[in-house]
Amino acid sequence: MSQAKFIVIEGLEGAGKSTAINAVMETLKQAGVERIKNTREPGGTVLAEKLRTLVKQEHDGEVLQDMTELLLMYAARVQLVENVIKPALESGTWVVGDRHDMSSQAYQGGGRQIAKETMASLKQTTLGDFKPDLTIYLDLDPRVGLERARGRGELDRIEKMDMSFFDRTRERYLEMANADESVMVVNAEQTIDQVAADIKIALRSWMDTL
Amino acid sequence: MSQAKFIVIEGLEGAGKSTAINAVMETLKQAGVERIKNTREPGGTVLAEKLRTLVKQEHDGEVLQDMTELLLMYAARVQLVENVIKPALESGTWVVGDRHDMSSQAYQGGGRQIAKETMASLKQTTLGDFKPDLTIYLDLDPRVGLERARGRGELDRIEKMDMSFFDRTRERYLEMANADESVMVVNAEQTIDQVAADIKIALRSWMDTL
Ligand SMILES: Nc1ncnc2c1ncn2[C@@H]1O[C@H](COP(=O)(O)OP(=O)(O)OP(=O)(O)O)[C@@H](O)[C@H]1O
Ligand SMILES: Nc1ncnc2c1ncn2[C@@H]1O[C@H](COP(=O)(O)OP(=O)(O)OP(=O)(O)O)[C@@H](O)[C@H]1O
Ligand SMILES: [Mg+2]
Ligand SMILES: [Mg+2]
Repeated sequence: MSQAKFIVIEGLEGAGKSTAINAVMETLKQAGVERIKNTREPGGTVLAEKLRTLVKQEHDGEVLQDMTELLLMYAARVQLVENVIKPALESGTWVVGDRHDMSSQAYQGGGRQIAKETMASLKQTTLGDFKPDLTIYLDLDPRVGLERARGRGELDRIEKMDMSFFDRTRERYLEMANADESVMVVNAEQTIDQVAADIKIALRSWMDTL
Repeated sequence: MSQAKFIVIEGLEGAGKSTAINAVMETLKQAGVERIKNTREPGGTVLAEKLRTLVKQEHDGEVLQDMTELLLMYAARVQLVENVIKPALESGTWVVGDRHDMSSQAYQGGGRQIAKETMASLKQTTLGDFKPDLTIYLDLDPRVGLERARGRGELDRIEKMDMSFFDRTRERYLEMANADESVMVVNAEQTIDQVAADIKIALRSWMDTL
């Protein structure tokens, strides 16, 4: 087997990312990958989890500026990449991430409409050329995903955004998926089993090329 | 009187910034400025104070990446500038800040040696052309300042850095002060009364030009 890879699952709330991780793990294990680490973003280190909480909370009604939200996302990401993901990959452990940079591009860039040049400059400044080897983007209508997420209980600060925000976010996701060969799109409006089957096929065919 | 101004006090730990604020406030009041707001950085809003705490704390031994520290400083600064400083200035209230962006340039840029292009790019991305109308930089040998700060009790994460860090930070402060006409340098190794007197003279002469 070639060197350890970084695989990311992306998609809107309720797309089935956390559910899909299982299909990815199974496929990797069947292919003989033994050491795998799961991460989630924002989060995945002690400090990054504190930042995740800050971003999801209210602060006595204080306006959270879009730029601040973006900076906090990158602060959490830098901690995770430098302290967890890179060391894991260097020691031969594969990493399967529940969200990564594509989420910032889609939500803060697409959804909140922060300029593309700003997004690109911040990404380059903080991450340089580091990127996932493979991204599986679970595509679905945001209405379907939010309906599923609602089943889990109260909506957080981001889940309460209006529908046009999520439509813009999905649009940016699709735009990036189409422009980047390392992103595979799976139709996430199918049943859980069908989504898992599509993920396994996509992942196996990608691994055959390694 | 012309429109409201943003005045910042800068300098190393123990330079006497918090002490100097009084001299600035008195001078402004004597000059007829009635509405003045004090800020401190990092901090000054509910969220920014939480970020200040995060930056000063330890996190179960997790390495705080230099880039993360920088992003958190800018996250706090964006909240303060957009939610507090700009609205104050727009409503005619003067703002006197205990530290601002020059601290990041000096500590993260000079002290931690983050590249100047990175510093400039992040500043432009987050603050655009916003800057103080006047900065009073209290210059002193870091050894003198740390000796004073030690008198206040336990040293925090930054105060525990080695001396070369503070020497680089002071050097960057002086470099910026020399290149920017809006920065006035005061010798902070003098007695408290002499420092206060120098600040008053500098501030009055600047206000005469408004
Ligand atoms: N294909 C599917 N069809 C129907 N329900 C699904 C499907 N995939 C996941 N679900 C259900 O939808 C809910 C959300 O799924 P999951 O938590 O995996 O989504 P997610 O993308 O991780 O969401 P979030 O972004 O909020 O973490 C769960 O209750 C899950 O069981
Ligand atoms: N010119 C001075 N001479 C001697 N002691 C001073 C002088 N200025 C301030 N001090 C004392 O030094 C200590 C630190 O001063 P101060 O808190 O104003 O510094 P500071 O620049 O705000 O520090 P920090 O960056 O840590 O907030 C205080 O005990 C203060 O009384
Ligand atoms: Mg999830
Ligand atoms: Mg002080």
